[in-house]
Amino acid sequence: MTINNSVQADRTKLTAGGIAEYLNAELIGDPELVLTSIASIQQAGAGSITFLSDRKYLSQVAQTAASAIVLQAEFAQATHVTRLVVDDPYLCYARLSRLFAPTVGKDIIHPSAVIADNVAVSSGVSIGANAVVEAGAQIGADSVIGAGVVIGARARIGDRVRVHANATIHYDCVVGDDCEIHSGAVVGADGFGWARGPDGWEKIHQLGVVTLGDRVSVGANTCIDRGALGDTRIESGVILDNLIQIAHNVHIGENTAIAGCVGIAGSTTIGSNCTIAGGVGIVGHLSICDKVHVTAKSFVNRSIEQPGSYSSAYPLEPTRSWRKNAVRLHKLDSIARVVKRLEKQC
Amino acid sequence: MTINNSVQADRTKLTAGGIAEYLNAELIGDPELVLTSIASIQQAGAGSITFLSDRKYLSQVAQTAASAIVLQAEFAQATHVTRLVVDDPYLCYARLSRLFAPTVGKDIIHPSAVIADNVAVSSGVSIGANAVVEAGAQIGADSVIGAGVVIGARARIGDRVRVHANATIHYDCVVGDDCEIHSGAVVGADGFGWARGPDGWEKIHQLGVVTLGDRVSVGANTCIDRGALGDTRIESGVILDNLIQIAHNVHIGENTAIAGCVGIAGSTTIGSNCTIAGGVGIVGHLSICDKVHVTAKSFVNRSIEQPGSYSSAYPLEPTRSWRKNAVRLHKLDSIARVVKRLEKQC
Amino acid sequence: MTINNSVQADRTKLTAGGIAEYLNAELIGDPELVLTSIASIQQAGAGSITFLSDRKYLSQVAQTAASAIVLQAEFAQATHVTRLVVDDPYLCYARLSRLFAPTVGKDIIHPSAVIADNVAVSSGVSIGANAVVEAGAQIGADSVIGAGVVIGARARIGDRVRVHANATIHYDCVVGDDCEIHSGAVVGADGFGWARGPDGWEKIHQLGVVTLGDRVSVGANTCIDRGALGDTRIESGVILDNLIQIAHNVHIGENTAIAGCVGIAGSTTIGSNCTIAGGVGIVGHLSICDKVHVTAKSFVNRSIEQPGSYSSAYPLEPTRSWRKNAVRLHKLDSIARVVKRLEKQC
Repeated sequence: MTINNSVQADRTKLTAGGIAEYLNAELIGDPELVLTSIASIQQAGAGSITFLSDRKYLSQVAQTAASAIVLQAEFAQATHVTRLVVDDPYLCYARLSRLFAPTVGKDIIHPSAVIADNVAVSSGVSIGANAVVEAGAQIGADSVIGAGVVIGARARIGDRVRVHANATIHYDCVVGDDCEIHSGAVVGADGFGWARGPDGWEKIHQLGVVTLGDRVSVGANTCIDRGALGDTRIESGVILDNLIQIAHNVHIGENTAIAGCVGIAGSTTIGSNCTIAGGVGIVGHLSICDKVHVTAKSFVNRSIEQPGSYSSAYPLEPTRSWRKNAVRLHKLDSIARVVKRLEKQC
Repeated sequence: MTINNSVQADRTKLTAGGIAEYLNAELIGDPELVLTSIASIQQAGAGSITFLSDRKYLSQVAQTAASAIVLQAEFAQATHVTRLVVDDPYLCYARLSRLFAPTVGKDIIHPSAVIADNVAVSSGVSIGANAVVEAGAQIGADSVIGAGVVIGARARIGDRVRVHANATIHYDCVVGDDCEIHSGAVVGADGFGWARGPDGWEKIHQLGVVTLGDRVSVGANTCIDRGALGDTRIESGVILDNLIQIAHNVHIGENTAIAGCVGIAGSTTIGSNCTIAGGVGIVGHLSICDKVHVTAKSFVNRSIEQPGSYSSAYPLEPTRSWRKNAVRLHKLDSIARVVKRLEKQC
Repeated sequence: MTINNSVQADRTKLTAGGIAEYLNAELIGDPELVLTSIASIQQAGAGSITFLSDRKYLSQVAQTAASAIVLQAEFAQATHVTRLVVDDPYLCYARLSRLFAPTVGKDIIHPSAVIADNVAVSSGVSIGANAVVEAGAQIGADSVIGAGVVIGARARIGDRVRVHANATIHYDCVVGDDCEIHSGAVVGADGFGWARGPDGWEKIHQLGVVTLGDRVSVGANTCIDRGALGDTRIESGVILDNLIQIAHNVHIGENTAIAGCVGIAGSTTIGSNCTIAGGVGIVGHLSICDKVHVTAKSFVNRSIEQPGSYSSAYPLEPTRSWRKNAVRLHKLDSIARVVKRLEKQC
């Protein structure tokens, strides 16, 4: 099941029975119980529904003040409150969270929004105050464009897309269905292309675009540059956290997840179903295969041809010992040579 | 003394005597001397006031062209210009700098700003051109909202807050008194919460908010994500530089200072009075105690239970030697094994 | 030759002969051939012009579907399509790319833009929808200010400058001629200056500005802070990629290029003609001489007095071996001591 934006329940009518049906859960308890909020096991109160997705919180279940809990069958006896028994409580939490999210205004074009004459706006679209949609852009059905957003000329925005306040999508870029672009994100700024000329750098005009597939999420203040000649392409299901830099002509495969503060240099290809942790830097013109995990703050300085986990980061230590070790690091090659010589001698 | 926004002197009337009173300084020289600018010892000219906060500039004091200087008693004989003798010249420089800062327009709601009907705007508030304040938001007394800012529905902004041009504060978030939010900052975008579903990532809607205490400063293009279930909380007196990523449910204690380009992953707790230098990455679900200093570009991959200074960063060297050492780094474990064996043998 | 914004050809009339003249190239083939697009050797089709700038693509030249190619004399026999023979095909590609870039609207002040009464707008200026130009600002001839941009009071913008959607330039800052400021960039936010007071941090008001020379490019969401007392200065020809942090009072010399996600702390000076790769962190108060190259993700923790290439980054390895090596790293000093002792013994 893919949940889409149209599944928005009326929160005053959320009952244990209704939720059990929505989650395809087995219900143990009162189907008429009204649930008004979702909370963690520790913070839940009366009227809350909670969930047990990690065995380490099992001991807290008996004490929770929640009125209902989502959990697996093997833990169903840990409490006597209303239970919704499912296979994957964490996934069910994700689906539940949707029911408690605030409803977004629909079908309201704020009069202060500036929409060029020849823009194609589909039904159900909402456009916020002081947003700007430039000539020739298209906005698909039920999409929500936030206040202060700028959509460039001829950009094509799919159905059920959310573009949050003050994001920018540049001319000719393409955003698929069910995407979400957070505030301050910049999609389609010029890639960083320059040639050395006799009097300094000469700009290479960036003639490609950015294409986002369906269900792509772009975090706040993340930048995805337009391609130099071809395009920068982010495939369907990719999720990008905040403050990520994706340079021109990068290609990211389906369902890859990238955490905050990652930088990916130009023309690098990343496979599908990868997970790149926060703060990683990836140099340009590399190829990373499917199902690669890179741990936080690593420096990816070569292509990766085998799925698996990769790392590179000097781990933390007290500054006093770091100072001593760091000095030795600069002598590591000569230390290694001595060790080799001693090994032969002894 | 906490200096607040209402202490804004008329620069044409700043005299050595008035400043001495403001700084609680002992004056040696002419109290009627008019001072029109503040400058460093080297760049000061006639009409400038300067300050000596670091002994290494003492030799330059005799040559300064400044008309007045703030310094400690022990250095008062280093010059014959008008002197303001204080205990902490650097702190006095901070307080002096306020007097020379440009005055901000007050009590002006620009006609192009879009303010929903049910917004509570207190007295003395200024709202810039093309700013947007959504339904149910509150803006406290004497706050200044810059051009192009978007304040989301029901957000509560305290008194004497400054939100600079093109910043975004999302729905339901809370900003305390005397905070400053710089341009492009995004407070309250969705945290990066996802569950794996059968067809890819399913979004965990982020139902918490961001709460900023009083006197919090948020740098340009810094992102602070809203909590997943509970809130992301930044306590009073925290100062955040530019381009910082603070993920959902992070908690930062009072008066902690964080420099630019730091990333803090979800649910990590940082104590009070910490100083985190630039470019540091901190993984999620950690706990860092009070009074910890982390040096620049470190990777904090574990909790810290003892105050003190911590580091992790391969220090710079010529690329040629770095290449040799980096190769050895990958063999470090086997080098260490050889050393251990040799130690036993010899 | 420096190409400026006024060289904008009519794409329907681009012929091989016209382009050869523009590039100062020797033409082998039909001067009347009309060229409608530019593409890579692999992606080019009929009507495209392509270029060979890297010998490794030479084998593909014979198969290209391009109608024309820019290349060096030594490779002119590799194909029979129309050829433009030049010395530097990559530089010519940069110059060609300009001809195919979309034309920007000129001399249009959108009625929704808010321009204070006493702003000086030169001829040929375009100002986008919902942009804001505050009191006393100046905008030079033929400059293009994008939608949602905020230009602060008394800022001075040169001729032929492009400021893209949702960028912010703060009060009193100076932007030279032919600069380009990308979306979300923040020029002139407050530097991160604080003094410790008895009740916490007290702000040092940032009284300097940012000055950009001519032909400076500032990437999307990049931040350049205003100076504390003196100014932050970026000299002519400097090119900055996205998501870069440049702190107060930094000085960057002419034609230096800085890639994405770099952070430069306060008061550091970088020479001219440097190239700083992505993800580098540079601590404050350093001095880096001319013609320095720093490789990606390095940590510059000391001044650099000799031109050359510098590095510091733990290179990638499988997580399994990284774990073993990282543990040894913390013992490196004691390993080195043992090696030294053994060396004496043996």
